[in-house]
Amino acid sequence: MVTLNTRQKFYQVIFGTQTKAGQYFDIVLIVAILCSELVLILSSVEGVATEFSHLLFVMEWLFTLLFTVEYIARLYCSPRPWAYARSFYGVIDLIAILPSYIAFLFPGSNYLLIVRLIRVMRIFRILKLARFLKDSNILLRSLLMAQRKILVFFSTVVILVTVLGALLYAIEGPDNGFTSIPASIYWAIVTITTVGYGDIVPQTNLGKTLAAFTMLLGYSILAIPTGIITAELSQEMKTQRDLVRCMNCSTSGHEDDANYCKKCGTELPEKF
Amino acid sequence: MVTLNTRQKFYQVIFGTQTKAGQYFDIVLIVAILCSELVLILSSVEGVATEFSHLLFVMEWLFTLLFTVEYIARLYCSPRPWAYARSFYGVIDLIAILPSYIAFLFPGSNYLLIVRLIRVMRIFRILKLARFLKDSNILLRSLLMAQRKILVFFSTVVILVTVLGALLYAIEGPDNGFTSIPASIYWAIVTITTVGYGDIVPQTNLGKTLAAFTMLLGYSILAIPTGIITAELSQEMKTQRDLVRCMNCSTSGHEDDANYCKKCGTELPEKF
Amino acid sequence: MVTLNTRQKFYQVIFGTQTKAGQYFDIVLIVAILCSELVLILSSVEGVATEFSHLLFVMEWLFTLLFTVEYIARLYCSPRPWAYARSFYGVIDLIAILPSYIAFLFPGSNYLLIVRLIRVMRIFRILKLARFLKDSNILLRSLLMAQRKILVFFSTVVILVTVLGALLYAIEGPDNGFTSIPASIYWAIVTITTVGYGDIVPQTNLGKTLAAFTMLLGYSILAIPTGIITAELSQEMKTQRDLVRCMNCSTSGHEDDANYCKKCGTELPEKF
Amino acid sequence: MVTLNTRQKFYQVIFGTQTKAGQYFDIVLIVAILCSELVLILSSVEGVATEFSHLLFVMEWLFTLLFTVEYIARLYCSPRPWAYARSFYGVIDLIAILPSYIAFLFPGSNYLLIVRLIRVMRIFRILKLARFLKDSNILLRSLLMAQRKILVFFSTVVILVTVLGALLYAIEGPDNGFTSIPASIYWAIVTITTVGYGDIVPQTNLGKTLAAFTMLLGYSILAIPTGIITAELSQEMKTQRDLVRCMNCSTSGHEDDANYCKKCGTELPEKF
Repeated sequence: MVTLNTRQKFYQVIFGTQTKAGQYFDIVLIVAILCSELVLILSSVEGVATEFSHLLFVMEWLFTLLFTVEYIARLYCSPRPWAYARSFYGVIDLIAILPSYIAFLFPGSNYLLIVRLIRVMRIFRILKLARFLKDSNILLRSLLMAQRKILVFFSTVVILVTVLGALLYAIEGPDNGFTSIPASIYWAIVTITTVGYGDIVPQTNLGKTLAAFTMLLGYSILAIPTGIITAELSQEMKTQRDLVRCMNCSTSGHEDDANYCKKCGTELPEKF
Repeated sequence: MVTLNTRQKFYQVIFGTQTKAGQYFDIVLIVAILCSELVLILSSVEGVATEFSHLLFVMEWLFTLLFTVEYIARLYCSPRPWAYARSFYGVIDLIAILPSYIAFLFPGSNYLLIVRLIRVMRIFRILKLARFLKDSNILLRSLLMAQRKILVFFSTVVILVTVLGALLYAIEGPDNGFTSIPASIYWAIVTITTVGYGDIVPQTNLGKTLAAFTMLLGYSILAIPTGIITAELSQEMKTQRDLVRCMNCSTSGHEDDANYCKKCGTELPEKF
Repeated sequence: MVTLNTRQKFYQVIFGTQTKAGQYFDIVLIVAILCSELVLILSSVEGVATEFSHLLFVMEWLFTLLFTVEYIARLYCSPRPWAYARSFYGVIDLIAILPSYIAFLFPGSNYLLIVRLIRVMRIFRILKLARFLKDSNILLRSLLMAQRKILVFFSTVVILVTVLGALLYAIEGPDNGFTSIPASIYWAIVTITTVGYGDIVPQTNLGKTLAAFTMLLGYSILAIPTGIITAELSQEMKTQRDLVRCMNCSTSGHEDDANYCKKCGTELPEKF
Repeated sequence: MVTLNTRQKFYQVIFGTQTKAGQYFDIVLIVAILCSELVLILSSVEGVATEFSHLLFVMEWLFTLLFTVEYIARLYCSPRPWAYARSFYGVIDLIAILPSYIAFLFPGSNYLLIVRLIRVMRIFRILKLARFLKDSNILLRSLLMAQRKILVFFSTVVILVTVLGALLYAIEGPDNGFTSIPASIYWAIVTITTVGYGDIVPQTNLGKTLAAFTMLLGYSILAIPTGIITAELSQEMKTQRDLVRCMNCSTSGHEDDANYCKKCGTELPEKF
């Protein structure tokens, strides 16, 4: 193995996920992000915000400092710091810490608190780690395989929702809550997805009949994405089982949780 | 290849989807229809309608002229213009442009704006194009195969909804919002599809018990259309995979995204 | 074939479904039941009831007379009339016609109109016919095979709903609309089935947290009945395909809509 | 078979489920628990509680005495009474009877009635029995196999719900009912699970657009748990069928309800 200098070692830990240390770093970071989000979430609750204002303030600054150190470390160990700073996650990392400092310098600008919420997006780095979990791999691959079918399905839903929304706007009109076609499309989405808030509801008989038709339609086309994903997932799981072959007798198709070959008892190669 | 005259070439582009030009024409037309719909949708929003009234007016006339030219071109190049004009899409095409002209001649008749919404139906020409996409093909074939099962399922739902609606009408009566049996059937559909607006809600204990039963029923029979479509889709996808055979060793059952035979490495024939 | 006397012929037509005439009789009866139901449904709508009262009255009596004739015919041709009269459908058939006569004799008792709704139950005779349709056969067999699994699932749902209802009653109490444990169980069913009327809604923070948990639970266990029915349906469809064998080369596993053997081209035996 | 003394025999009946007597004991106990729950549920309904107060009181004490006898019997026959008393179910068993006695000694403490609801948890002993039913076995195994996939799915849902809740809080603000981020997350869960109470509803156009996006997202990701469980269940059922082999010709893959080998007619070994 090639000996690495400090910067390269740092790089492997902070950016990489191959080493144990890198994985621990990612986990610690995720926990820190989740905790800092919790602080933000709690500081939005009126009762908590007034009672624990001091604690929340201290926590917030602790996380800001931690993320600042992390940001500087990333800049330091990155082989091309400028490229990192301009990358998507580089900008997100900066946005995650900047608002606290600006709020400190200009005390009035409390509006920046909301910008901090973007910090949430850093959690999607989890996916970088999750890619190493077999199960999320299968789920992702199934979704990617089904991608085009889901697109075809969604285009159909969008057209349906527009047509139904426009029709209901023409039938019910602004007096019954269907103030505009976009509002009616919103109603159609609320109905076809079976959410059914009940804030906009058809009043005329024709409108109710069409609404009933929309519901039954939504009810049955709900089956299509489920069918797509189930079919892809079954296929993907079958493929995965076929990939694991016994080293000794090359039997495939072992159970998902099998550790030994069902034919000859040889230990199976690890799945990845 | 036979040499085509101008009219035949036009016909191939406007009505056909086999040539590249015909496909481009369809795509341009779909975009134009979608944009003209967007103009219609936006002009239904009060704020936008008053502020951008001039722009929306110009846009609307631009699209009307475009669709008029298209309509004349279709009449010109069609081998039997009169048959086209009387066909379903011929009438829709005329309805899509007529209201604007009538509204121009008789300024008072703003009601025609709603008729223009029928223009939406022209989008279903997309399906003519979509037929060439493999994925929508599989979805459509699965739905067609499941057609009769879905019909059996829907008849059952319609009977159930009528029985439950009538029962709730008898139990709750007009005083609790169940004004008539059709209104109660509307309630039953809202409940069994799990939409649940909450505009009509049972008040008596017996009514609530029956409503709870309706919900649990809806919850479990929701599984049936999903089951039907999933089973058909899996079968269809398997069939599709079996259809693609290697030219060299005639192995079938390749992965959905495979380009080369998994046995001998020969390039696989393109799927259609 | 044995020669049948008139009574036996009548019996075969009215009770049987094997002969063409018997199937036509059933279809005519179903249409008549549906129409008479439509008359009942429409007479519950206030506007229609007052305007077309005469027409509805005549229609109602026409159907009553028709069903009376049918009832007498059934009694006449049945080998054991008394056994028929006391059977489930015999009683339903009587209930379907009696209220009209009672209402005629004692004009005040309009309440009997509701009893007539039970006439709906006669529609379930459709199932007697539907048993001959292959597709409803597959659906029914899948449901029967899944019967015990669905029972296990429903017991779990009932326990969950009771526990959650009791907890919400303890947390929210009568002041927030959770007036009793049955009312809270009603809320739990409304929530877990994702109907969500919104007539009873948790107000406290703890109640809302538990409600969110209930929703996510309902969301995921919704997957179980779907999974059960899909798995059974796939299996059933595969079995069905395996049952159809070519007479010539005995190949099985033909497509659902295949009429000729895919191996040797011989016409396949009809499925039933 | 080894001769058992009285204590051991009692132990086998009360704790065990292998013997017939043990299974009957469990069933009787489950019925008693369900009845005592019914008494508790009914005593929460105001009308019933005042009218049948005496009967409910007697029933409650009967069940309390029955469970007290059962608790003492369990302590008596258990080989390590103290270990039982401190075990999870031991504590639940005590909690199930204690409140009634405390309420008897200190008449004012009616609040203990709610604690009695924990008695419900004893029903989960059913699972101890249910483990011997093949069908719940398959359901449980499928859920266990899918465990990790469901976890990955739920983590994604939790992140999504947090992000969407925070965004809606930022967009709508406390004036439109989105009083805090937790309240907004509650809204996001209500929406993404398609429950849709309608107690909190977006008012701004941007909020409504995002809500529509949330619904469509919920609509499509609803397909994922269904897909996971269906795929696992199909696999599990196939495995189960493969496990049952004919003793004579060792053919596997028999129908779920087959009692005899489809190849040679030998009776199949019982499934467990």
